[in-house]
Amino acid sequence: MAKPKKQPRPKAETPKGFRDYFGAEVSERTAMLRQIAGVYHRYGFDALESSAVETVEALGKFLPDVDRPNEGVFAWQDEDEKWLALRYDLTAPLARVYAQHRNDLPTPYRRYAMGPVWRNEKPGPGRFRQFYQCDADTVGTASMAADAEICAMLADCLEEVGIPRGDYVVRVNNRKVLNGVLEATGVTDPEQQAAVLRTIDKFDKVGESGVRELLGKGRLDASGAYIDGVGLSDEQAAPVLAFLTSKGGDTAATLSNLRAAVGGSDVGTAGVGELEEIATLLAAQGYGPDRIVIDPSVVRGLGYYTGPVFEAELTFEILDEKGRPRQFGSVAGGGRYDDLVKRFTGQEVPATGVSIGVDRLLAALHAKGRLQAKAEGPVVVTVMDRDRMADYQAMVGELRAAGIRAEVYLGNPKNFGNQLKYADKRNSPVAVIEGGDENAKGVVQIKDLILGAQIAENATLEEWKERPSQFEVPRAQLVEKVREILGGQG
Amino acid sequence: MAKPKKQPRPKAETPKGFRDYFGAEVSERTAMLRQIAGVYHRYGFDALESSAVETVEALGKFLPDVDRPNEGVFAWQDEDEKWLALRYDLTAPLARVYAQHRNDLPTPYRRYAMGPVWRNEKPGPGRFRQFYQCDADTVGTASMAADAEICAMLADCLEEVGIPRGDYVVRVNNRKVLNGVLEATGVTDPEQQAAVLRTIDKFDKVGESGVRELLGKGRLDASGAYIDGVGLSDEQAAPVLAFLTSKGGDTAATLSNLRAAVGGSDVGTAGVGELEEIATLLAAQGYGPDRIVIDPSVVRGLGYYTGPVFEAELTFEILDEKGRPRQFGSVAGGGRYDDLVKRFTGQEVPATGVSIGVDRLLAALHAKGRLQAKAEGPVVVTVMDRDRMADYQAMVGELRAAGIRAEVYLGNPKNFGNQLKYADKRNSPVAVIEGGDENAKGVVQIKDLILGAQIAENATLEEWKERPSQFEVPRAQLVEKVREILGGQG
Repeated sequence: MAKPKKQPRPKAETPKGFRDYFGAEVSERTAMLRQIAGVYHRYGFDALESSAVETVEALGKFLPDVDRPNEGVFAWQDEDEKWLALRYDLTAPLARVYAQHRNDLPTPYRRYAMGPVWRNEKPGPGRFRQFYQCDADTVGTASMAADAEICAMLADCLEEVGIPRGDYVVRVNNRKVLNGVLEATGVTDPEQQAAVLRTIDKFDKVGESGVRELLGKGRLDASGAYIDGVGLSDEQAAPVLAFLTSKGGDTAATLSNLRAAVGGSDVGTAGVGELEEIATLLAAQGYGPDRIVIDPSVVRGLGYYTGPVFEAELTFEILDEKGRPRQFGSVAGGGRYDDLVKRFTGQEVPATGVSIGVDRLLAALHAKGRLQAKAEGPVVVTVMDRDRMADYQAMVGELRAAGIRAEVYLGNPKNFGNQLKYADKRNSPVAVIEGGDENAKGVVQIKDLILGAQIAENATLEEWKERPSQFEVPRAQLVEKVREILGGQG
Repeated sequence: MAKPKKQPRPKAETPKGFRDYFGAEVSERTAMLRQIAGVYHRYGFDALESSAVETVEALGKFLPDVDRPNEGVFAWQDEDEKWLALRYDLTAPLARVYAQHRNDLPTPYRRYAMGPVWRNEKPGPGRFRQFYQCDADTVGTASMAADAEICAMLADCLEEVGIPRGDYVVRVNNRKVLNGVLEATGVTDPEQQAAVLRTIDKFDKVGESGVRELLGKGRLDASGAYIDGVGLSDEQAAPVLAFLTSKGGDTAATLSNLRAAVGGSDVGTAGVGELEEIATLLAAQGYGPDRIVIDPSVVRGLGYYTGPVFEAELTFEILDEKGRPRQFGSVAGGGRYDDLVKRFTGQEVPATGVSIGVDRLLAALHAKGRLQAKAEGPVVVTVMDRDRMADYQAMVGELRAAGIRAEVYLGNPKNFGNQLKYADKRNSPVAVIEGGDENAKGVVQIKDLILGAQIAENATLEEWKERPSQFEVPRAQLVEKVREILGGQG
């Protein structure tokens, strides 16, 4: 007779492309989201938390054209055979919410949303299938004041989370200006227009001369392959190159260059007018080009948005994985998209918004040493005498009541060394020790673990000799002395 | 020729059983989670945020025994044919995380986690398929000090979020005591034991006499149906009834009653000892039976947990939907479960924890009028002259710089009445008006909308006559005067 098969043990693993976040990783992000929510709120934006699950029909972009619409999203069928999916961003749910609740919502509707989104894409280093987004959008107004406000708010958010003025810049471009430039080229074939757009998208990588070649006959790329060009004449390509390089010494110069680039195009002239309006509104509030600047070289998002386009970049250098200095780059982006709600209602509803990359910002602050996982471990009260647990609990009770993070060691207390190892693993600043002798004398031992670690590291330094890392204090002074040590580390 | 079919418009709807949360609903919950996280942190618990998606294998409870494991969870197959699912609680992910990272985590590991969980269950009124959990657990210690600490922390959390002492009680029971009681009944047949457990679960509903009947021959229920009993003799049933009604005038009396109920059972005596240890530890920290009480009538969770079981109840009355007073009831629960990690590693790892029902707590605070969606709408600067948008933006810039929530009206400014309707919908406390005349005189009109609403409501009252709800102030005093009005509403 065969033995009954043993069920193999399940593997303790996150699914591929997902990860866990521990301790400070969580609390730093929570703190940053709170800071940003504070700015959004001050600007009059209201919180919205939509469900993580939407119907695939409402998400739209991923409507099933095959049996199983798993391209890009995580989707499944519910008991009614309806396809449901995890949201892939916070904008598609906003469209659904606005269409569903538009009669109850104020117009314009300013809302912010923060939370995880999910992408069913190939994961890679630093690329996860679940990540945070942190968006603010204004729905229901075509006014450029809404776009200007989003830019100002973005600058305020960056400063609020600890990016000082001078270390960031918000760049503003406009899709309508690009449309005007396309008109000026005389290119009317939609496919050729799309090819011009794709070429412009490469401006960040190949620069002016690269774009010139790619708009014309073509270009030998770095790998030696020849990339066919769009086939524009020099004359046709000129407005595009003028557009991309139109940033002047000041806003007036940039706007004047742009006006020249769009030639007589109505839509292009309107786009330049919008940029001028934004610059004027921002100047009135004191946001000069040192913080927010009209910059037509910003091409990211131009294909997606329908009007103004914004991008926030951090301008300081960090060292990449090979130790080479490079610009930190983009941490937020957004723009105007006027067809948000039309899918649902048939009505065009203008909208503009921004999405801040919170994880990118946290990485930037870490790279600059502005966020240090501080020694925020708890004070650990060790257990010398298992029967006196109540006394040790009373100690942490007092410490906590004074607002001090504290805990009793709750593992097996037999080996005192293990208790100190635990305190070390917890990043504890202080250990408290009270054995029978101390108890009889009415005192406790306080061990300054951070000072202790410093002494261990620099054992030869004279200065440490006069500062013992462990000392005895009356039991009644426990809280006071611990506070002193913690204060000294501020 | 047939016309090409028009694609029908997608419906703007949340999936069945899901909902959206707006404005104060979101910010109140965020604030409460932050308060609770503060207490958890002070007790030495570290944040953990695991991914929303787990392998069905790791979730365990819902291993697929059919092709599609959609019972209870939302699940789907990924590109490798693996079943993935949304987490249904925060405990199963903790087991997976602890098993996966146990070599890097401190022992004991105190962690807290907050976030949405998903249940593929039939939705109902107030029952949603996505809701928040807010858990704290200590993994890796069998010490009763860990259980006592969880109870103390739970009491602190309730007070921190605004439930005053006297309005709540944390009740503690113990599964081991129940096991001892089962031994004392002499019931050894596992099926009959299970029937006794199920009967105990009904104690909340049917009371002592109901349980007595159900343990014996049976009972006529309210609908007139006869429910068969477990078939115990009076003598066999006696320890169970003694257990359920063993709460005495003080802790010592309760413990003494429990010792009698378990007779000579070793496991039962050990369980009573555990309760005594918890009570002693809590008393040493000043948590008396007015806050945390040994109460064997708590039966919820006894089937699931392996040692101490906790439940927090709010003791004040609220009015139900029919206007009848009733106790608010349970807002948190937890206990010890020592087989958390064994599925993964084969090793038994003791653990104990609590889950706070944040949405229940928010409902309780609303029911008691302790959370009022305060008039936290923004100051609205109206637009009298479209060309002077920059001036209006400068006003809100000043107000925001002073920490005051403010915005310019960004809808179509043509109809001034619409602007005031908008301010009303936003719950704005103040509207600011500056037309051409005001601008020429260097003044602005300030409209106190809350006072205005009060006057409108009580138009006959004399007192309002002397307090105009709209007045003119010099432009330079805008921020100061608005602050005065807002301060007056504190």
